[in-house]
Order: sequence, then structure tokens, then C-alpha cells
Amino acid sequence: MRYSVFAGGKRLRPVLTLAAAEAVDPRAFDLALPAACAIELIHTYSLIHDDLPAMDDDDLRRGRPTLHVVYGDGIAILAGDGLHAEAFTLLAREPATADPIVVARKIDVARVIGEAAGPMGMVGGQAVDLQAAGQVPGHAVTLDADGLRAMHARKTGALIRASGVSGAIMAGGGADVVRAVDAYASEVGLAFQIVDDILDVEGDPQSLGKTTGKDAAAAKPTYPSLFGLDRSRQLAAECVQRAHGAIAAARLTGSHLGAIADWVVSRTS
Amino acid sequence: MRYSVFAGGKRLRPVLTLAAAEAVDPRAFDLALPAACAIELIHTYSLIHDDLPAMDDDDLRRGRPTLHVVYGDGIAILAGDGLHAEAFTLLAREPATADPIVVARKIDVARVIGEAAGPMGMVGGQAVDLQAAGQVPGHAVTLDADGLRAMHARKTGALIRASGVSGAIMAGGGADVVRAVDAYASEVGLAFQIVDDILDVEGDPQSLGKTTGKDAAAAKPTYPSLFGLDRSRQLAAECVQRAHGAIAAARLTGSHLGAIADWVVSRTS
Repeated sequence: MRYSVFAGGKRLRPVLTLAAAEAVDPRAFDLALPAACAIELIHTYSLIHDDLPAMDDDDLRRGRPTLHVVYGDGIAILAGDGLHAEAFTLLAREPATADPIVVARKIDVARVIGEAAGPMGMVGGQAVDLQAAGQVPGHAVTLDADGLRAMHARKTGALIRASGVSGAIMAGGGADVVRAVDAYASEVGLAFQIVDDILDVEGDPQSLGKTTGKDAAAAKPTYPSLFGLDRSRQLAAECVQRAHGAIAAARLTGSHLGAIADWVVSRTS
Repeated sequence: MRYSVFAGGKRLRPVLTLAAAEAVDPRAFDLALPAACAIELIHTYSLIHDDLPAMDDDDLRRGRPTLHVVYGDGIAILAGDGLHAEAFTLLAREPATADPIVVARKIDVARVIGEAAGPMGMVGGQAVDLQAAGQVPGHAVTLDADGLRAMHARKTGALIRASGVSGAIMAGGGADVVRAVDAYASEVGLAFQIVDDILDVEGDPQSLGKTTGKDAAAAKPTYPSLFGLDRSRQLAAECVQRAHGAIAAARLTGSHLGAIADWVVSRTS
């Protein structure tokens, strides 16, 4: 668990949680920190499981050998399971308070994260991805542009949305503000995925810390393969514009949220 | 997920949750039902992952082919992950109430279940089991009787204890009652495991619905291998006696808890 959690990484999700919390209430950083950590633990567990030979079969992650390469598949499955359980334990335990308002927010956040990580979200999206890659005998699917978008909305989008939403909830944001942060994070998540697909084509494996060219090798449908590189870049830029619009409408502009959206499309790793 | 959850099984854990809840407050069945279901989802996910070729490599469970045999390892890993997330989602969502007393109990239960299922509990115990079976290169361990007990206390005992404790908490049990139910469930869990080991030696695969003789084939340390069959049976009976003592001391005798303890040692499947 330590090997994978402390291997670095961009920490996009917890940063989003904390930025959303501070956008709603500048004093909410500490309140939102456990949720931010829980989401990063869930993200890390999902990377460990996705890298397994039975899934994407990757041997490089964050610039180091993947966990199963070092400790074997069994321990990698268990390390992922352990991080998954620990995420919810952390949410339930921290912030340690009997304040009923905070306790109610914690339960809301546990539900939001559980739904985002579960069968209707991340795990379900990964299952569709496996089917699209022809890895589920008798259950292959072919994804068009809409299917690709729907798959990514679940596989990566749901947890990124939950990252922003969790921060807004922990900070005490009302329904309107939570909805605006959700809309913002949804656009950021889609932009992030499009850029991910682009970097898999033209990124530098060294600075990315992972194998590139995997999508093409696996004949996976991607934004570049469906729309070309130029149009994909344009689609990502449009997402970021809409993300800015969502936070402007909710008057959350004096926060880090705008800069995070800009970084998502300018990143090279 | 449906394939594994609805394959039957003994449902010991949710039954314990509901019996403990009713022992504390006869009207608490509905309050405790979501926790009971969540625990069964976690138990089911752990069976799916434990049966994988990278772990115990089992192809028969609850009388049917294991999930990975039917859908492949990738989907089996994801189905387990999906059930794991869904368990916590269910806990956070149900019972659906804004009553701060119930919300506080839900958060307590989420923490109890998360800790029991996580690295200090079930997942950690399974990791030790893998090491003891020599399946983690460079990290093999040899278990003596104490080590075996400690491994089982984590691998199966922790979630069985959490099953009882969760029911007692949802029913509003005070610290003393929760402690008594914990002591009871701890003995029931150990008895259950000893009987499991015995049934692996002399049970009927047909009525068990799973492969027998696996422990001996894998040269795993078990109660029968360390103590012999007769002494193992005696140890299990002593656990059940202590379980009865724990509930008698807390005046929880007018409940199903005693009958459940008796069943655990008399069962043949």
C-alpha cells in the first residue's frame, strides 16, 4: 500500500477536493482533508487493479515497476482492496467530531464517493473498457463516440466529479454551489481524459512515468483515434471553457479552481 | 455481482448483525438491515477475490463455478471491487434518515466495518495467509499455533466481530453491550474457523458446495494439522461455551445469539 500511495502522482483528485472546499469556505481545508485523502486512496487502488495482467497488464506506473511486478498479483489485489477499505475507514473516522452537522456531511460524502467508485461509476466504466478491449469472452462491445464518452464519464469522470463535490459538501456548500462544482469537475474530468488519450499518442514516457502507445497497441477507441489529434485538442479546450463558465456562474472565481482547469490541458505529464 | 451475491451461502454474518440488533432492541431489525447487507456484500467480494488464481485458485464456490471461471479474472476483480464500494454506499444511504442519532450510528458502523475489512483485519489476514502458503516471493512466513490464531482473527474473525458489533451499534447498544456482543462474536468467529478447517478434512464437498482437502494440498497450517481433529473439536466447543457466557453476562440470552453459536459447531456445510 505504501509503495503505491507514496510513488508520487499528480494528486489531481485531492487537489480538486481541497480547492473546491476552499472556494466555498476559505477555512474548510482541514474539514475536507480526510475526504481528499480517501479519494486519492481509492484512485491509487484503482490504478493497482487496472495495471494487473488480468486487466490492462501494465508494468510501469508513476515511473516505477507496478505493484504486481514487485510483489505478485495476489498482494497487488489485496493492497488495492486494503486501500479501498481504508478510504472509507478514513472518511468515517476523520474529521473526528461529534458535531452532527459535520457527521451528516461525512455520510453524504461517503455516499458520493461510494457511488462514484462503484458499479455505476469507476468500476462499471472499467468493466465496459475491458469489454471494449475484447477481454471479456462472449461480452465484447464496440464503442462509438457516445459510448466512449459514456465509458470515460464512468471510468474517470465519476471520481473526478466526486472529488470536487466532496470538497464543496465538506465546506458546507448549498445545493446550487455543489451543482456548479459538479458541472465544473465534470468538464475538467473530460478534458483530463482527452489529454490523457493525446499524451498516450505523443507524450514522453519518461516524464509521464508510464508506458505510452498502449491504446493504439490494444486497438482501444480513444479521442485521437475517433477525432484526430487537432480536434481532440480543441474538444479539451472547449471543456475547460465550460468549466470556467460553471465556476463564474456560481461566483467561485477567486479560487484555485480556474488554474486547475487550465493546468489540465497544458500538462505534459 | 448478482451471480456471486445470489449464489446462496450461509449468510452467517448478516444473520449475526440482525440477531445482535434484535438482542439489544427487538424493534431494531430495519435499522440494522442495511449494515447486515453491506457486510454480506463485503464477505462476497472477499470470496470472489480469494478464489482468484492469484490467490487460493478455487473453481468451485457455493456449489457453482467461481466467478472468474465464468467471466474471467478481470471481471471477477471488478465485481469484487464493485461489491466493496456498494457496501459502503449502502451504509451511507440507508436507513435514509436525517435523524442525527441514526446518522452518528451509521458513521460508527462504517468505521467498524471498514477497519474490520481493511489492512488491520480481513485483507491483512489474507495477505498473511498468502505469505504462509509461500505465494509471496521473498516474504514467506511460517505460522505456529499463535500465528495461525492471529491470522484467522484478522482474516475471518474481524468481519464476524464487526457483524455483531454493527448490529448492536445500530440498535443503540451502550459501550458495555457492544463489548459483550464483540466478545461473543469473537468466540463464534474462532469456532466457525476451526469447524471450517475440520470440514475441509472430513466434510462432504457436495453439501459444502466447495472443494475440500485444499488446506492439506496447499500444506496450509490448520487447526486439525496443528492439534488433531479431536482436540480441534474440543477447542471449538470451548469457544461456543465462552460465547454463551458473554451473552449471559450482558443479559442478552432471550435472543437468537445462543442458537447461532450452537449452529456454528453443529453445521456440516
